[in-house]
Amino acid sequence: MAPASTRTDRYELHYWPGIQGRGEFIRLALEEAGAPYVDVARLPEREGGGEHALLAFMEQDTHTLPPFAPPVLRAGELVIAQTANILLYLGPRLKLVPDDEAGRLAVHQLQLTLADFAAEGHDTHHPIASSLYYEDQQAEARRRAASFVAERIPKFLRYFERVLVKNAHGAGRWLVGAELSYADLSLAQVLWWLGHAFPNALARATPELPRCCELRDRVAERPRIAAYLASERRLPFNQHDLFRNYPELDLEPER
Amino acid sequence: MAPASTRTDRYELHYWPGIQGRGEFIRLALEEAGAPYVDVARLPEREGGGEHALLAFMEQDTHTLPPFAPPVLRAGELVIAQTANILLYLGPRLKLVPDDEAGRLAVHQLQLTLADFAAEGHDTHHPIASSLYYEDQQAEARRRAASFVAERIPKFLRYFERVLVKNAHGAGRWLVGAELSYADLSLAQVLWWLGHAFPNALARATPELPRCCELRDRVAERPRIAAYLASERRLPFNQHDLFRNYPELDLEPER
Repeated sequence: MAPASTRTDRYELHYWPGIQGRGEFIRLALEEAGAPYVDVARLPEREGGGEHALLAFMEQDTHTLPPFAPPVLRAGELVIAQTANILLYLGPRLKLVPDDEAGRLAVHQLQLTLADFAAEGHDTHHPIASSLYYEDQQAEARRRAASFVAERIPKFLRYFERVLVKNAHGAGRWLVGAELSYADLSLAQVLWWLGHAFPNALARATPELPRCCELRDRVAERPRIAAYLASERRLPFNQHDLFRNYPELDLEPER
Repeated sequence: MAPASTRTDRYELHYWPGIQGRGEFIRLALEEAGAPYVDVARLPEREGGGEHALLAFMEQDTHTLPPFAPPVLRAGELVIAQTANILLYLGPRLKLVPDDEAGRLAVHQLQLTLADFAAEGHDTHHPIASSLYYEDQQAEARRRAASFVAERIPKFLRYFERVLVKNAHGAGRWLVGAELSYADLSLAQVLWWLGHAFPNALARATPELPRCCELRDRVAERPRIAAYLASERRLPFNQHDLFRNYPELDLEPER
């Protein structure tokens, strides 16, 4: 057992150390709240970090409920997996959800929709199998990305724009209620990813998305988020991440 | 507004009327609990049913938070979307989750993992775009299904078998705690789907899955579930559903 695993005065995030990935939704929530946490796999190996330690943690026989895949959050005795489930747990504790049940369900609903969007983003470069290289599914990736660019990016982003317009309490600033929630942080992250992986598609969609773009920029200006994005804790975009910049997948749709 | 939409003494499920689909996870929970509900789109058109009425409901301007896609549950004033989110809401009300937060998070975590599995099952026949016919992505479907059959079905099902083995409270009977939860119902549904769509793959995996198979059969014998499965409310498997029987996608893995 790594030394990092024995602390109970801080959250432990267990996630791939080299990518933003789904773990980034959780990192952003912890950072915005200024919560004490350790990104375990990013520690030096002698302190319990690294991919081998992550895989060993996943396979540990002591988990009451084994996790299927990273990310996993350890909070004291609790070991929680599935990104949206982790945010469901953290939301009230980090004050990143409304107080009422309806508001919390609304935030979770949007998070699950963002998770679906992110999964589709991943599948543009891996439409056949995650276990194969991109190069071994490039023809299929082009077809899948063409549909993602022409149909799915506009559909998802128009939906979130509409949610912002409809949220009277937030005056178009936030997705649910009058305050920032973890879904707002996740929408900003998806927009950052799209700007990296599908800059042309995002640029075409942008004129219809004034509120989404303002939300993204408003999130970036939150003092703790701004400090995080400028720090070494924020991993750079790269070609192992959920969203990847392959210019051949970001083409103008055929008419 | 359809007459069915004004009742508050029963749940309203809004989902595609011709398929089991993701809505089936919710139907099974409502049926197991004996909860009063109406499957709105399956009503006759003059009573507010049909696909047109479903689409009109989805687009209604009165939703505080617009839903992205069916299923949607209306519970009094609440309008909730995203299958796992609906089950999160219903779980305690239908007594299909443990009383403690850790147990509820565990059930939700497994539901989200089953949702991922079901989405991958869908993508075997639609790896390129949901907007295209199967026939227009059949070559890609064969490649994706080969990976699903060889890697993903064994990985997911061995995982759930391991969860059952590890759950000391359930004596290997249920996934979480000592009682049936909505995740158990959903696992049974996924196994029924696999038996329809990938009978060869499931048969190959079965020797390793005694507890999963017993759970599936135990769910089928619950009196209310047995009555539901024998009723007209249970829609038959068909080639529009999330899981479809295309024999060319259920081939023995190459060695």
